[in-house]
Amino acid sequence: MKHFTSVLDVADINVLVEKAIAYKVKPLSDNTLGNGKRIGLLFMNPSMRTRISTQIAARNLGMEVIVFNIDKDGWKLELEDEAIMNSNTVEHIKDAAPVLGAYFDMLGVRTFPSLQNKEEDYAEVLLGQLIQYAGIPIVSLESATLHPLQSLADIITITEQHKEKRKPKVVLTWAPHIKPLPQCVANSFAQWVNAWGKADFVITHPKGYELYDTYTNGATIEYNQQTALQDADFVYVKNWSSVTDYGKVLCEDNSWMLTPEHLSISNHAKLMHCLPLRRNVELSSSVLDSKSSIITEQASNRVCAAQAVLAEILKHNQAC
Amino acid sequence: MKHFTSVLDVADINVLVEKAIAYKVKPLSDNTLGNGKRIGLLFMNPSMRTRISTQIAARNLGMEVIVFNIDKDGWKLELEDEAIMNSNTVEHIKDAAPVLGAYFDMLGVRTFPSLQNKEEDYAEVLLGQLIQYAGIPIVSLESATLHPLQSLADIITITEQHKEKRKPKVVLTWAPHIKPLPQCVANSFAQWVNAWGKADFVITHPKGYELYDTYTNGATIEYNQQTALQDADFVYVKNWSSVTDYGKVLCEDNSWMLTPEHLSISNHAKLMHCLPLRRNVELSSSVLDSKSSIITEQASNRVCAAQAVLAEILKHNQAC
Amino acid sequence: MKHFTSVLDVADINVLVEKAIAYKVKPLSDNTLGNGKRIGLLFMNPSMRTRISTQIAARNLGMEVIVFNIDKDGWKLELEDEAIMNSNTVEHIKDAAPVLGAYFDMLGVRTFPSLQNKEEDYAEVLLGQLIQYAGIPIVSLESATLHPLQSLADIITITEQHKEKRKPKVVLTWAPHIKPLPQCVANSFAQWVNAWGKADFVITHPKGYELYDTYTNGATIEYNQQTALQDADFVYVKNWSSVTDYGKVLCEDNSWMLTPEHLSISNHAKLMHCLPLRRNVELSSSVLDSKSSIITEQASNRVCAAQAVLAEILKHNQAC
Repeated sequence: MKHFTSVLDVADINVLVEKAIAYKVKPLSDNTLGNGKRIGLLFMNPSMRTRISTQIAARNLGMEVIVFNIDKDGWKLELEDEAIMNSNTVEHIKDAAPVLGAYFDMLGVRTFPSLQNKEEDYAEVLLGQLIQYAGIPIVSLESATLHPLQSLADIITITEQHKEKRKPKVVLTWAPHIKPLPQCVANSFAQWVNAWGKADFVITHPKGYELYDTYTNGATIEYNQQTALQDADFVYVKNWSSVTDYGKVLCEDNSWMLTPEHLSISNHAKLMHCLPLRRNVELSSSVLDSKSSIITEQASNRVCAAQAVLAEILKHNQAC
Repeated sequence: MKHFTSVLDVADINVLVEKAIAYKVKPLSDNTLGNGKRIGLLFMNPSMRTRISTQIAARNLGMEVIVFNIDKDGWKLELEDEAIMNSNTVEHIKDAAPVLGAYFDMLGVRTFPSLQNKEEDYAEVLLGQLIQYAGIPIVSLESATLHPLQSLADIITITEQHKEKRKPKVVLTWAPHIKPLPQCVANSFAQWVNAWGKADFVITHPKGYELYDTYTNGATIEYNQQTALQDADFVYVKNWSSVTDYGKVLCEDNSWMLTPEHLSISNHAKLMHCLPLRRNVELSSSVLDSKSSIITEQASNRVCAAQAVLAEILKHNQAC
Repeated sequence: MKHFTSVLDVADINVLVEKAIAYKVKPLSDNTLGNGKRIGLLFMNPSMRTRISTQIAARNLGMEVIVFNIDKDGWKLELEDEAIMNSNTVEHIKDAAPVLGAYFDMLGVRTFPSLQNKEEDYAEVLLGQLIQYAGIPIVSLESATLHPLQSLADIITITEQHKEKRKPKVVLTWAPHIKPLPQCVANSFAQWVNAWGKADFVITHPKGYELYDTYTNGATIEYNQQTALQDADFVYVKNWSSVTDYGKVLCEDNSWMLTPEHLSISNHAKLMHCLPLRRNVELSSSVLDSKSSIITEQASNRVCAAQAVLAEILKHNQAC
C-alpha cells in the first residue's frame, strides 16, 4: 500500500483485518518497524478518536509523531491552482506540500468538506494535491467524502463480533441530526462493506438522502426503516446531509432516531456508531446504555486499524 | 492510590512528600516504571505549569504522553445525564470516557468551574463521570473546586524551606483581583494543610469570602490581615471569588494587596503563590522581586509532585 | 554558543554551515547528544516550518521536546517592567521565565512584532527578558526583528547551490503584499550575508522601504529592481513593511512582483523565499513552478540549520 485514502488502496481487506487483530493482541509486536521514520498528522478540523488513535498506532510502531493543527497553529491553505492570493489564504498547497514531504516520511491529513460545493468536495482536491506534491505516502484521517480508517475499524469490529458462519445482515441507517453533516462515514462504510462482500448489506434512509452508487452498489436500498432493520445483526447509525440537494437537511422526522423499540425486530442486533454522537437526537440514551451497543469496542479498534495501515505503508516503502 | 482528585486519595502525605523530594534529586531514578503505559492529558482550559510539569513527570517515568485540548482540538462535552443533545454539546462524557479509557492507561484532566452554579461546580460532575465511565485512574489537573497537584507542591515547598523543628505558622491570605476566580487553589491548600497537620494554619480574608468548612476545619479564620500575618513563616497569597454570593467579587480594597510592609510583622515570611499572578494587583512587584519570594521554587516543585503521584498510581496498578 | 538570537551569537558562520550540512547527510549522527535534555518551544504566533523543523532537529539530537502555544494553551504575558496588571495580561514574563527555566534545559521562542511601536519592537523585550530571567539558553524561533534560523538555512542553501569559485551575486528584492509584514526576515538575511562576506550583495526595494543600516551595511542598495537583478545568481524575494513610516504599506506597484521576465537578465538565478508566500502577489506561479525555484530545498534546510544550532548550544553547556 502506497497511500491510504479509500478501500481502493487495499489489496486484500481480510488480510488487513487479520493484521489489525494481531496488533490488537500484541500492540508492540512491530515496535521497531517505524524506527527512524516520522509521520506528520495534519488537522484542518477537530478530531478526538482519529487524532489520538493514530498517534498511538504510530508510536506502537516506533515512529516519531508530530501533530500540526494547520487551522490553529498555522494558517489557511490555498488549493486553487492559479489563485491570485490577495485574500485570506496565506500559503498554497503547492508550496507547503513539498516542504512537508521533505520533513516527514508519511503524512496523515484530516480535511472536512465545505458542504457548499459538491463538485469541489467530491474532487478531494487537498488529498490529490498532497499526493501529487508531497512525494510521500498520504493517509486520510477523514477526507471530504470518505473516512477509510473508520471503515476499516468498522469491518474489524463486525469480524470480531460475528461468531456464526452465515453472512451477517448489516444495516446502515440514517439518523436525525440538528446540523448538516458530511457524507463521508456513510460513503466509506458502504464502499468497504460492498468491497468486503461478506455481509448482506442494507442501507435505509428517507427519500432525498441517496448516496452516490459508486459507494452503494452491492447494497439494498430500503426506504422503510422497519423493513430494513428486520433480522439485522448489526445496525450502524449515522446522520448525513443530502447529496442531491447538496449539504441540506431535508428530514426532521424524529421517528428515525434509533431506540430499543427499533431493534426489537432485529436479530439481537449490535449497535454501531462512529462517534461523536448526539444522544436523544440520533439514538436514544436507553439504546446506547444497553448491552446492544458495541460503540466503545468499535472506537477502540481505531488503534489497531490505524496501526495495520501504517505498518503496510512502512513495509511497502521498505520494499521499494 | 487509584485516582488522585483530592488529599483524600492520599494514604500518607509525608510519604508522598518524601517520594517527591527523592524524585527531585534523581528525576530519572524510576524511568522505566511507566514503560508501555500511556497518559492522556485533557485540557478544557488553558494551563502552563500543570501542562508542562505533568508532561515532564510522565516522561521522567518513561510513560508516553498525549496532550488533547478538548476545547480546541475537539468539541464541547455534554455532562447532563439524560440531555437531549440538540444544542451546542457534540459528545456526551458517557460516550467519550470509555473510549479514552480504552486508549489510555491513565487520564489527567483540567476543568474549570463555571462560577455560575455552585451546586454544579461543587458536584465535580466531570471528574465523577470520568471515574465512573473511563475505568482507568483519573488525575485532577485542577478541577472546579480543588487543585491537589498544586497543593502537594505547596506542602513539598514548605517542608523543604522550613528548617526548624517547631511548627511553621502558615497564613493563606486573600488578595484583590480584577476578575472572579475559582476557589479551588484556596480550598485545596486549606484541605491539604489541615490534613497534613504540621503547621499552625491561619486563613485571612474579607468578610463574605468564607470557604466551606469542609476544607478550612482545623484552620483559624482571622478577618484582620495584619493580625493574621503576625509572626508568619509562610504567606500564601491568592485571590478567590465569594462562595456565599457565588462567583462574585465583593471586595476591591487594595490594602489587601501584599507588599513588603505587610510582611514586616511576619517572621521573615516566605512568600508563596501558585501562579499566574497579577503584579501590583495581588502582590506588589517589590515583594515579588525580594528574597522573600519562593514562588519559582514552588512552581518547580510541580514536576516532582506530579511525578510522585503518577508513580504511586502506576505502582498501585501493577500490584492489582 | 550560549544563546542564539542573531548572527552575532555565531563564532564562525562557515563552521556552523559545514556542521549543518554534515547533519543533513547523517541526521542521527549525534542522536544521544541531547539525551536527558529538554527543550520547550514557545509560540506566541503561528508557525509551520519553524515549529516542525525545530522539533525534528531536537529529536534528531535525542532531546525531549514540549511545544507550548502560549497564545492558545496559555495566556497573554506582560512585558512592561512595573506594570499594574489590571488589564488583559495574565502573567508577567518576570514570573513565567524563571519557572520555564526550571522546567527546561533550553527554550525556543517565537514572537512577532506589533508593527505599532518601532522602539518597542526593536528593543526585543521578550527575548531580552527571557535571557535575563530564564537562566537557560534561549533560541529565537523568529523574533520581532530577526529570524536567524531562517538566515542560517538561507546561507546553507546558497553554499550548497553555488558550485563556482567566484563570489555569487545575491539579490534581496522587496515584493508586494496585501498586508504589512515584519522586517525580520529581510533584516536577518542582510545581517547574515554581510557577516558571511562571501557574496556580492545587493538589496533592492522601493523608496521608503530602507532597512536599518545596522543590518544592511556591506550591501549595495539599488532602487531600480531591474538594475539590481542584472547577472544575479540568487534572488531572494520578500515583502516587508516600512521601517521609517513604521509598519506601513507604502507601495502597491505590482511590477515588483517577481516573474520569469524579471529573471531573464539574471545569471539563471536561483529563486529563494522563506515561505509562506502569496502566489501571484509576491511572485508569479510560473516562476515558482519553474526550475529556478530552490524554495523547497531552502525550507528543507531549516532542519539541519536548527540541528546545528541546538547541537552547538548543547556542547557549549556540556563544556561549562
